[in-house]
Amino acid sequence: MTSAQYEIIVATRGRDSVELTAQVAAHVRESGVRIGLCHAFVQHTSASLMLCENADPDVRRDLEAFMQRLAPDGDPLFVHQNEGPDDMPAHVRSVLTGVDLTVPIREGRLALGTWQGVYLWEHRSHPHRRRVLVTVQGD
Amino acid sequence: MTSAQYEIIVATRGRDSVELTAQVAAHVRESGVRIGLCHAFVQHTSASLMLCENADPDVRRDLEAFMQRLAPDGDPLFVHQNEGPDDMPAHVRSVLTGVDLTVPIREGRLALGTWQGVYLWEHRSHPHRRRVLVTVQGD
Amino acid sequence: MTSAQYEIIVATRGRDSVELTAQVAAHVRESGVRIGLCHAFVQHTSASLMLCENADPDVRRDLEAFMQRLAPDGDPLFVHQNEGPDDMPAHVRSVLTGVDLTVPIREGRLALGTWQGVYLWEHRSHPHRRRVLVTVQGD
Repeated sequence: MTSAQYEIIVATRGRDSVELTAQVAAHVRESGVRIGLCHAFVQHTSASLMLCENADPDVRRDLEAFMQRLAPDGDPLFVHQNEGPDDMPAHVRSVLTGVDLTVPIREGRLALGTWQGVYLWEHRSHPHRRRVLVTVQGD
Repeated sequence: MTSAQYEIIVATRGRDSVELTAQVAAHVRESGVRIGLCHAFVQHTSASLMLCENADPDVRRDLEAFMQRLAPDGDPLFVHQNEGPDDMPAHVRSVLTGVDLTVPIREGRLALGTWQGVYLWEHRSHPHRRRVLVTVQGD
Repeated sequence: MTSAQYEIIVATRGRDSVELTAQVAAHVRESGVRIGLCHAFVQHTSASLMLCENADPDVRRDLEAFMQRLAPDGDPLFVHQNEGPDDMPAHVRSVLTGVDLTVPIREGRLALGTWQGVYLWEHRSHPHRRRVLVTVQGD
């Protein structure tokens, strides 16, 4: 049984999702694990990780529009506005969509479905440097 | 330390949730793991896995009603409608409720609470064949 | 490779979030694992676990306000009201925010970001006794 850990740094350009599938898959290969689990974790509370449809970019555009309607910037409901109108909506989105993700490894590869991609979702308006830890465990 | 992997195929009848607790629990027993983790993963972006109250079916009926209000079919907000009015709402639901789930194993059994059941949640209107990978790791 | 398991009992005072970071971190140290994963799981369907900003308490107050708007107590949409007007909203919140959480372990410590804390989120109005299982796996 192996435990291996890797770090991915993502420079985001503000609110948007960034595909990490290839980078995560490369770390799985590097680990040599054939059967097991690959865990990814973003060390922030205003970004998240998601598995999303990877074919039509409109899907991610629509997810963005959905979140903007659900937790609009500058919503008067929110007291916490220290860092601007997108601050608290970013925390809401992060809690709803999650900062960790675990994908099975099968025959030495990430066992994703045909249409699944791994994405970091930046929820702040401005660019940020996001740190993702990838931990691989298995045989 | 053992790593074992199993596949469950679920034929859904359209939008509804299907209990998988017994099948997942059987794979945990099959693995022989006494203490560890059981990870389940659905290889699709328009279905999800959830832990839900397993006593009163109205709970799942109400969750369905809640989701239909939150992300209605045919919502004009959505651009991506390739496969029909339930296409994008299904992706939204999948991202909000998650495609992976990890349950602890204790004394060789899934350590669920009394009222917890493992469910696959089909978010498309029409029947689909869904693939779930179950990975068991532990001693 | 080690698998270790611990139990944390949380006595909640009704709807609120309770920080568990120090308790979870203590179990990670106790396990002796240097690199691996720490999984936490709440054995209930009306509470959840979340990673949240740990500096300004207004963030958790705003999350609470957001959830009360999204799934209000006594919402006529809900059929399942057996245990009162907060019953079904608690299940909705639990499904949306999740009952399990996995955090990487690096150099023998929980690899949280600077502003991340581990919280149990009680979704019922009245006090409850909640059981959290912590499973640590790694080298």
